Formats: sequence, structure tokens, C-alpha cells
Amino acid sequence: MGRMGRMRERRVEVIPIPIAKDVRISKGCDLASLILDAIRDNGTDLVDSDVVVVTQKIVSKAENRMVHLADVTPSEHAIRIAMEQGKDPRVVELILREAKRIVAVSGGVIITQTRHGLVCANSGVDGSNIEDESLTMLPIDPDASARRIRDGLMRATGRRVAVIISDTFGRPFREGQVNVAVGVAGIKPMMDYRGMRDMYGKELRVTSIAVADEIASAAELVMGKSKGIPVAIVRGLEYAQDEQASARDLIREESRDIFLRLALERCGEAG
Amino acid sequence: MGRMGRMRERRVEVIPIPIAKDVRISKGCDLASLILDAIRDNGTDLVDSDVVVVTQKIVSKAENRMVHLADVTPSEHAIRIAMEQGKDPRVVELILREAKRIVAVSGGVIITQTRHGLVCANSGVDGSNIEDESLTMLPIDPDASARRIRDGLMRATGRRVAVIISDTFGRPFREGQVNVAVGVAGIKPMMDYRGMRDMYGKELRVTSIAVADEIASAAELVMGKSKGIPVAIVRGLEYAQDEQASARDLIREESRDIFLRLALERCGEAG
Repeated sequence: MGRMGRMRERRVEVIPIPIAKDVRISKGCDLASLILDAIRDNGTDLVDSDVVVVTQKIVSKAENRMVHLADVTPSEHAIRIAMEQGKDPRVVELILREAKRIVAVSGGVIITQTRHGLVCANSGVDGSNIEDESLTMLPIDPDASARRIRDGLMRATGRRVAVIISDTFGRPFREGQVNVAVGVAGIKPMMDYRGMRDMYGKELRVTSIAVADEIASAAELVMGKSKGIPVAIVRGLEYAQDEQASARDLIREESRDIFLRLALERCGEAG
Repeated sequence: MGRMGRMRERRVEVIPIPIAKDVRISKGCDLASLILDAIRDNGTDLVDSDVVVVTQKIVSKAENRMVHLADVTPSEHAIRIAMEQGKDPRVVELILREAKRIVAVSGGVIITQTRHGLVCANSGVDGSNIEDESLTMLPIDPDASARRIRDGLMRATGRRVAVIISDTFGRPFREGQVNVAVGVAGIKPMMDYRGMRDMYGKELRVTSIAVADEIASAAELVMGKSKGIPVAIVRGLEYAQDEQASARDLIREESRDIFLRLALERCGEAG
């Protein structure tokens, strides 16, 4: 619990890392060294315990998780949903290919569960901040993507850092989207408070905090959608290191998720 | 969009503000001056554009939104639910009193929509970090609470700041809880990107970011449940000022929320 009062607690800094427009992120590029160059161009360097948050978009570009719409032939299923929802059938085709199953289709939005288990709009397929009629898909294994970037950063700097791959998701009950963690490396994504006591010795109501999601959200505050800043460092944070970390821990199991079950009962499995 | 590359972007700082254990927060106390004292005790002061995030818990204490369990007589409805879910009937009674309606009851958790419209576990009724057999309820009008604190802080310092009242909520699809904004003052809670263009001139997929929720999540990173730090300053953030701001903008309308509708169809209105 620690002493409080006059003791000063540690501040956390969120440092935006823009990447110069002339730096091309393309298939097979060394994302770790590209990110490190950008960090140094911005007048800083990595220190131990930094959490480097990287938007899915540049990871997908570097991993060639991109498709030109012209290369996509929609299935009949995709064409039917596209007509009902007023969407491009080729986009719908991609969304279906990325989906393990459809969770809900409503108001032009197709909510799916991706092969990773993530429940989100359009299977994470996204056409913003890339050129031409192309779309990005989420990395195939975002934890592995995070680990690769982390390994590269640690090799180059000798610093023990963590990496989070973020994406922007909507959520039920609340308006607006927030950044969440879709891949993690080196940081336990959940802070477990089970069995812990509060200041008065009572068991805590909060059982676990999704710190990786909160870090992704904090990073979004300096990234800004239209500024296109794809990386941020969260510095000064105390967190649990974990070499086996996985963002799968952030995905609620269907058996524990009444809202997912209700949606699947209604239209999901029929999709 | 702005120039990027060599230009350094602004950092955001998240500053924890512990309140000394000997400071008693009780009914009618002047929360703004108490928070300002704590800020100064921590060796800083407010500057223009600071966002002061305050946990619901101390606001509820200052507004006497507390109940001793011994003073609660449960209704038959509460007793029935309590028996089914293995909960204290008096706690269930309070949850029901705070609820506009039940959304789902599952695994010992009662998910309700509060009178504010918030969908959350146990109507926000909480027994942690308070003494004895007492529980706190959410402020009756969290926007008004935020405005009162903001007015006090601005009067005392002459600085233009914003205030967010935060609480810790679970969410569908994802494990773990995160801090969200239940009340706001002086800051537009949503950043609207509709019609805006990305770096390549394409319309953005992301239509709005729930910045107030992301700020609340960023603040949680320095608060920590067991440390009991109830206030944090988020400094250096660019945000849209708004004198008429309301956290109601963050609440998704039932007509736009398929998951809420499905849950209400099944068990909500029957609760």
C-alpha cells in the first residue's frame, strides 16, 4: 500500500513520436529500427521500462497485411450483406475473410469476432491513412509483431522496454472509440487485484485493470487521428514485466460474456 | 494536419496527486480547495489547460452519497435477486434503487443502467476504500459535481482548467476494467472526426474518439487501486474547451446500441 501524503508519486509521460512523411513503411522494412530512428529524431531515446505503443496501421504495412480492392472478388454472401448495408462488396468480402464469425450487423457496421478473438467493427479492416484503394488488415499474430519490434528495440538500445500494438475500437453502451491493445510484448496486460485489500483492509471491488488498454488509450491522446502520429512512448509507468505476455488475456471468453452470447444467439452464428 | 517530421510534438504528463491520509473527506467539505492543497503539497500547481481527473469515490464522499448497510431494508425483489446471485440483499437493494433498469444479471454481477444512463456493474454502488459497512453511490449529477470542482479550482488559481470525474467500469468483449468519464466540465468529451481527412485525403474511418474516457484511463495508470490516489492531473493535452460539456455525450442511445437492446429484450425490462 505504501506511505502516502507528502511523498511525491512518480509522473508518467506520454511522448508522441511522429514519423517523417518521407519515411516509407513498406513490406519487410525493419520497423524496430525505423521506430528507433524516429524516437531519436524526436530528441529522445529509450530508457528502461518505456512502453512503446505502435498503431496497428504501420505494423500491418510493414507486414504487408494490405490488399488492393481491385484484387478482391466478393463472394455472394459478401455481395448480399454489402447490398443490405450499403457497403462496397469487396470491403465486405475482406471483412468476412478476416472474421471467425459475425457478431452483429447493424447500421452499416459489421461487428465480427476476428480470428484472434477480438470483437470489433469490420474485423479491423481499415482504409484510412493508406494510399489508393487499399485496405489494411490486422497483423496475423499481433503479439508476435509486438515481440519482434521489442526484440529489435532491445537489441539496438540494451534497454528493457515493452511494446503494445494498438487499434481503435468502438464499444457497447458508450459513444466514441478508444484505443485498445491488440498485441503486447514484455508487459502483463492485466493488473490483477484479486484478493488485494484497500486502504481500509477491505477486499477490492475492482478485480483487474486492463492496463494495456489504458496505456493504448493514453497513447492515443498524443497520436490524434488526423495528425497521423503512429508511435508514442509511455514513460515512468510502474508495470508488471512479463516475457510470456499475450493480448489474448484481454479477450473475454464467450462463456463469461453475456452480451456476446446474446448477439451470437440472435444473428451471429446465422451470419 | 500540420507539418511533421523534425518538428517535436507536445508531450503529455500524467501527474498523480495523493491526498494525505489525515485529510478527511466528508459531507460538505470543500473538495476543490482540498484538491488544490493536495496539488500544492505535491510540489506543483495548476496551469492553463490542465485536466484534473477526480475519482468518483471522493466526490461521493464529499456529497454524502454514502449509505450504511445497517440502514438499508431490502425489498422482496432485492432479496430474491440476492439469493439467486449470492449477494447481500441490502447491497442489491441499493443497486436497484440506483438503477433505472436492470440490463443483465449474471454470475453474481448485476448490470444496470443507472438513472444517469450509464450501463455498468452494480449501478456504480461500491464498498471499497471507505470505512465500515458503508457503500458509496455515484454522484446524483456528476457533470454538476465536475463543474463545482472546476469553478472552485478556477476561482482559486485564475487558471482555465477542465475536470473529469472518473469511475472504473468493466466492458463487454474484453477482460479487465478501465477508467471512464462519468462527469465532465470544461472539456468536450468527444473529439469529432466526421468529414475530416487522413494524410492521404481520404475520409477517416474513425468518426469520434472518446477523449474524456481516454483521459480517465490515462489517469488511472498513476492512481492504482491499492494506492488509493484519488486525483491526477493530465497536463499538456490539446483538447476542445466546452463550457456546456456533459458526459451524457458519452452514453450511447439505446436505439444505436444493438447489444443493449438485445440484453433488454431478454431480461432487462423483466428484471
